[in-house]
Amino acid sequence: MTVVNYQILLKKRPSGAPAADDFESGEGRVRSPEHGEVLLKNLYLSIDPAIRGWMSDAKSYLPPIAIGEPIRSGTLSQIVESNAEGWPVGQIVQGLAAWECFSTVPVSNLHGKVKTIEGIPLHAMLSVLGGTGLTAYFGLLEVGRPKEGETVLVSSAAGGVGSIVGQIARIKGCRAVGLTGSDDKCAWLTDTLGYDAAINYKAADLRIALKEACPRGIDIFFDSVGGEILNIALTWLNRRGRIALCGAISQINAVELPPGPSNYLQLLAKSARMEGFTTLDFARRYDEARAVLASWIREGQLKYRDDIANGLENAPSHLLRLFTSEPRGKLMVKLANPEV
Amino acid sequence: MTVVNYQILLKKRPSGAPAADDFESGEGRVRSPEHGEVLLKNLYLSIDPAIRGWMSDAKSYLPPIAIGEPIRSGTLSQIVESNAEGWPVGQIVQGLAAWECFSTVPVSNLHGKVKTIEGIPLHAMLSVLGGTGLTAYFGLLEVGRPKEGETVLVSSAAGGVGSIVGQIARIKGCRAVGLTGSDDKCAWLTDTLGYDAAINYKAADLRIALKEACPRGIDIFFDSVGGEILNIALTWLNRRGRIALCGAISQINAVELPPGPSNYLQLLAKSARMEGFTTLDFARRYDEARAVLASWIREGQLKYRDDIANGLENAPSHLLRLFTSEPRGKLMVKLANPEV
Repeated sequence: MTVVNYQILLKKRPSGAPAADDFESGEGRVRSPEHGEVLLKNLYLSIDPAIRGWMSDAKSYLPPIAIGEPIRSGTLSQIVESNAEGWPVGQIVQGLAAWECFSTVPVSNLHGKVKTIEGIPLHAMLSVLGGTGLTAYFGLLEVGRPKEGETVLVSSAAGGVGSIVGQIARIKGCRAVGLTGSDDKCAWLTDTLGYDAAINYKAADLRIALKEACPRGIDIFFDSVGGEILNIALTWLNRRGRIALCGAISQINAVELPPGPSNYLQLLAKSARMEGFTTLDFARRYDEARAVLASWIREGQLKYRDDIANGLENAPSHLLRLFTSEPRGKLMVKLANPEV
Repeated sequence: MTVVNYQILLKKRPSGAPAADDFESGEGRVRSPEHGEVLLKNLYLSIDPAIRGWMSDAKSYLPPIAIGEPIRSGTLSQIVESNAEGWPVGQIVQGLAAWECFSTVPVSNLHGKVKTIEGIPLHAMLSVLGGTGLTAYFGLLEVGRPKEGETVLVSSAAGGVGSIVGQIARIKGCRAVGLTGSDDKCAWLTDTLGYDAAINYKAADLRIALKEACPRGIDIFFDSVGGEILNIALTWLNRRGRIALCGAISQINAVELPPGPSNYLQLLAKSARMEGFTTLDFARRYDEARAVLASWIREGQLKYRDDIANGLENAPSHLLRLFTSEPRGKLMVKLANPEV
């Protein structure tokens, strides 16, 4: 019996925002793993802004997805066939695979073995204990390097990463200020997640609102948005301030390269630093970070919210929500339950 | 007898490039030092791009020069009256004073006592052993953090700072590549200073020339120019690359804020860092740096060139050369010899 591998393929590269017709469904083969590879059954797909970047042909830390290939994606998967020592069948892993039911990948694509934790659902291994949480953890702690009493500004603060960043900032004794696109989400940030202040950037004069919300200036800006928000934040950055560049969702769909932040020389005037990162830079420390994040969850210091769609066919529309509806928490798509 | 204090004052803020009529000469009084202050006889004025920044009213690490005040300047000076313990009359110091024959300053403006070194002329204490050398030293070593075998690109490479940066890069085992504005200066960089390669950015297609001169990419860009040069260098930056922002001479005269580097997201794609600094950030380590720089000079590993004008009245025209003729080495103005 041949198992059909349902897939969502890249039909064409988006021009501007991705659209439903950039994708097409396909049926591939399930390939047996060669030496050093495993065959994964994908359980959950992680829906991240990074996917939009991989859909373009710009040079980045990973090559572009080829036309006709399944969409690359972080996944939570179960090994169903193994040709790699130390990666047994049945093991649940977090890895880099694709929008398809089964993926054959080298073990270098696996970011770690998933140990389920009592009281924490499996899908959290793809959000707060997966790429999202790791991005927040390493970006804030290793790139931002917060000190007690400092002010941490977070853009896309209600998103998967941002909702974690502000809470870690609070745990480290910082003032956490979030930027998001609706009053409802502002209330969620302050009332549920414990942000000290939140700004609806669509309603506020950002220059004024930032000075009010950050009366002692900005020490760290954790930025996933870029554009005018970054440019304004630069003017209110403190001496020796740090900008952790996590992404630029405001520019990710741009057809032509938008102008850079005209205020970048604030970095010079303030001996400040702007630094990009990806979680892959910290791959050796994933287990350490997961253990710390899990302990914060157990102690009730860290909350998270997962927004889960069901079925591979819904992956494209769930991704498009990232660019239109600014969801709360982490987006993912459920494909299957693990086999016990 | 009243001593007249000849001064060059800021007459008006420049619009665009500074011009001769932005300055006017004046005659001030010599004020006796109050507690914690010293009276300086200025021997040499340091002519730096930073002065152009202080002439504008933009917020920076130091307040703007007020209209009618003497032009702020690094100086090499001799204490002629002291009201501060540990700063005796006769001591030669490097400090922050002004374009005038005498300056009364708090000792916090003094960057160190100058010990003359056999075989090294006094004015070198204002260049290779002063702000210029310290900027090159801390900017490259502490912000850039070079590792052996890396490629260091330097803009304004024939200038006071840049001419030192490339040589330190070579001492640290790096490939040094310089950008400058004429073939003559390119030859000076490679033949006299030991740069591995030099690019005349006015004659070359910078994208192509950079790839040829930096075949393994750019690990560190020590940038004093900004603008299009910075933007192109970003595209050729290596993973974990560092941009040490020393200045932006291409933008310093801009009336309106020019666009920022549209390629700044290369920092994200490459987990790279762009960081501003001033030597003031490292004030506690000036003596250490001077000792190392002096030992390199004595060993013949570090060369320098000082371009010295004579007389206070020539300070404005010497400053204007920074923005027109891209001089070789460090510009300064001699006012007086020290009293023995």
